[in-house]
Amino acid sequence: MSPGSTLTRHERLHRALTGQPVDRPPVWFMRQAGRYLPEYRAVRQRVSFLDLCGDPDLACEVTVQPVDRFDTDAAIVFSDILTIPEAMGMEVVFTEGRGPVLPRPLRTRADVEALVHPDVATALPVVPATLRRFRAARPDTPILGFAGAPFTLLCYMVEGSGSKDWLHPKQLLWSAPDVAQALLDRLADMVGDYLQAQIDAGAAGVQIFDTWAGVLTPEDYTRWALPAAARALARVKGAPRIYYTKDTSPFLHLVRQTGADVIGLDWRVEIGAARAALGDVPVQGNLDPVALYAPPEEVARRTTAILDAGGGTGHVFNLGHGVLPTTPIPGVQAMIDAVKAWRPPSAG
Amino acid sequence: MSPGSTLTRHERLHRALTGQPVDRPPVWFMRQAGRYLPEYRAVRQRVSFLDLCGDPDLACEVTVQPVDRFDTDAAIVFSDILTIPEAMGMEVVFTEGRGPVLPRPLRTRADVEALVHPDVATALPVVPATLRRFRAARPDTPILGFAGAPFTLLCYMVEGSGSKDWLHPKQLLWSAPDVAQALLDRLADMVGDYLQAQIDAGAAGVQIFDTWAGVLTPEDYTRWALPAAARALARVKGAPRIYYTKDTSPFLHLVRQTGADVIGLDWRVEIGAARAALGDVPVQGNLDPVALYAPPEEVARRTTAILDAGGGTGHVFNLGHGVLPTTPIPGVQAMIDAVKAWRPPSAG
Repeated sequence: MSPGSTLTRHERLHRALTGQPVDRPPVWFMRQAGRYLPEYRAVRQRVSFLDLCGDPDLACEVTVQPVDRFDTDAAIVFSDILTIPEAMGMEVVFTEGRGPVLPRPLRTRADVEALVHPDVATALPVVPATLRRFRAARPDTPILGFAGAPFTLLCYMVEGSGSKDWLHPKQLLWSAPDVAQALLDRLADMVGDYLQAQIDAGAAGVQIFDTWAGVLTPEDYTRWALPAAARALARVKGAPRIYYTKDTSPFLHLVRQTGADVIGLDWRVEIGAARAALGDVPVQGNLDPVALYAPPEEVARRTTAILDAGGGTGHVFNLGHGVLPTTPIPGVQAMIDAVKAWRPPSAG
Repeated sequence: MSPGSTLTRHERLHRALTGQPVDRPPVWFMRQAGRYLPEYRAVRQRVSFLDLCGDPDLACEVTVQPVDRFDTDAAIVFSDILTIPEAMGMEVVFTEGRGPVLPRPLRTRADVEALVHPDVATALPVVPATLRRFRAARPDTPILGFAGAPFTLLCYMVEGSGSKDWLHPKQLLWSAPDVAQALLDRLADMVGDYLQAQIDAGAAGVQIFDTWAGVLTPEDYTRWALPAAARALARVKGAPRIYYTKDTSPFLHLVRQTGADVIGLDWRVEIGAARAALGDVPVQGNLDPVALYAPPEEVARRTTAILDAGGGTGHVFNLGHGVLPTTPIPGVQAMIDAVKAWRPPSAG
C-alpha cells in the first residue's frame, strides 16, 4: 500500500483478512443487523424472527440496513446459528426476551442417533439465496457468511437453551464421551459443508462462532472444541475463515491450532498482547460492546486505542461480542467514524 | 518439610498461603456451606437466607457442616458479600432462584452521596461473632473471613441485581467517573476495615471476591477495579489476603498488582501457565465447579492433574468458582479424597 491510496471495500476486507497492508482496517460488527436499529425493529413488527430467517428477500433487506446506514466495509448475512440443529430435526423456539429454546434437548445416545444428517444444499437453501440477493443488491460491499461452531451448537442442542454453567453439555462430554464425539463429528461436517455452500454462493469470507468454547478448561477445549472446529474449518476452501470465541484469551496458542485464517477476539484481552500470543495471524476485534453506551468521544478514544495497538495490518475492526439490543446509535456511529478516520502511523 | 511428616490444619493452611513447603496442599472450596448439602437445606427450611446471615449461632452451625462432613482443611465463614451495601443503607432482597436484588440501585451522584458510611464494628458485628463461635467450636480448623471487592460491590449496587452485561455499572464508570471513583474509595475503606475486623476476630486469612472484575477490559480493570482492590487490601494486616477474580486470566500480571498475598484462579486457565505468568506468588484453585458432576474417577483424575501442575508449594486447592447448588456429594467427596491422597513428587 502506498500512503494516501484508498481501496475498494472488497479489496480492503480481503487484504485485512489475509494480512496484507491496507489504507485502514475494515469495520463491520457482530449482529450489525439487529434490534438496536429502528429500521430492523420496523421489519420485525411485520414478521417473526423465524419468518425473517426463512425468507431470503426479508433477510437480505435487514442485511442491507446497517450497510446503508453506516457504510460499513462488510455485511454479514442475517441468519441464526441454530439453523443447523433445526435442519437435523430439532425443534427451535424463539421467545421474545428469553433467547432460543430447544424443547427436546439431546440427553441420550438414542437422542443423538435420532438426528437426521441432511444434504446441506437441500436442507439449508435460505442463507446461500440471501447471499446471492445481497451480492446483486450491493455489489460494492463484500458479505460474510457464518455458522455456529460444532461445540457451541452441541451446547444449545444438549442444554436446550442458553445457560450460565452449561451443566448438561459438560456432563455429556465427561459421562458419554463417545456420544459427544459422534455428535461433534456430525456437526463439524455439516458446519463445514454449510460454510462452503456460503462461499460458493459468493461470501467473501466466513465466520464460525464458538461463543461457548470459553466455558471449557484449556484441557477440555483441546480435547473437544478445538478438533471439532478444526475439522469443520478444514472442509472449507476458497475464502478466508474467521474463528470467533469468547473467554478463551488465556489460551490463544490453542485457539490458533484450529487452523483458522483469522482469530476473533473478545474484549477481555488487550489486542497487542493477543497478537503477541498468537503470532503471525490476522485478528478481528475487539471493542467492548458495552463501550458503545459511553459518550461518543469516549467511544472514539477507545476505538482509536484498539486500532493503534492492533497495528493496522492484519486487523479487521469489530466488537468483542455482538452489539446489544439497546445500544445507542450515536455510539455505533462514533465507532464507525473513528475507524474511517484512522490511518497507520507510517502513512503519516 | 521432611518427607512423611504431617501438619496440623492450621500449619498446612498458613504454610500454603505463605508459600512454604507442605505435606500436601490444603483444600477448602468456595460456597462449601451451601445448598448442595442436605444438612444446609434442613437449616434453610427453618430460617430464611437473611436470618441465617444475621444470626452468629446459625451461621456458625452451617459453617461447621462441610468441615464435619468432608474434614476440609479450612472453613470459610458463612455470610454474603452484600452485607456491606446493606450496612451503607441499601435494601437487599434475596428471592429464591433469582439471586439478590437491590430495589433502589445507585444511578446518580445524589444516590451515592446518600449512602451512609458507618463504623464497621458497630454496623457489621455478625461475621466477627460467627468467627469467634467457630473458633471455640472447632479450634483445630482454621477459618477464613471474606468480603466483596469494591468493584464487584459497585456492580451490584449500581445494576441492582446480577447481570450478564453490567450495563449500568460500566456506564457510570465512563459517564460519571468522579462519582464512580468516590463510591469505590468509600467501598475500599469499608471492605478493608471489615476484613481487618475479621482477622482481629481470629480469621486465619481473608478472601476478597472480585467476581465481576473480569467483565472489564484490561484498561478498565487497571483504571477501576485494580486500584480499588489494592486500596482495600492495603488496610489489612496480620493474616494472608487472598484475591479472587473470574475471567481475568488474560491479564494476570495486572491482577498481581493488587498486592494480594495469594491469587485465586478460575478454571479457564491452566494452573502451571498461570503460575508462570504470576511469578512467585501463591495461588488458589482451580477445578471447574461443573467437573464435580463428572463420574468420581474423572473428578479424581482432574483434581490430581491440577495438583501435579500446581507443583505442591504455594497452592491452596479450591474450585475455580463457587460450588453449584445441585452438585452431587460424591463428586465433592472424590475431590477431597484426591487432594488428601496427593503428595509432592519429592516426598516419594
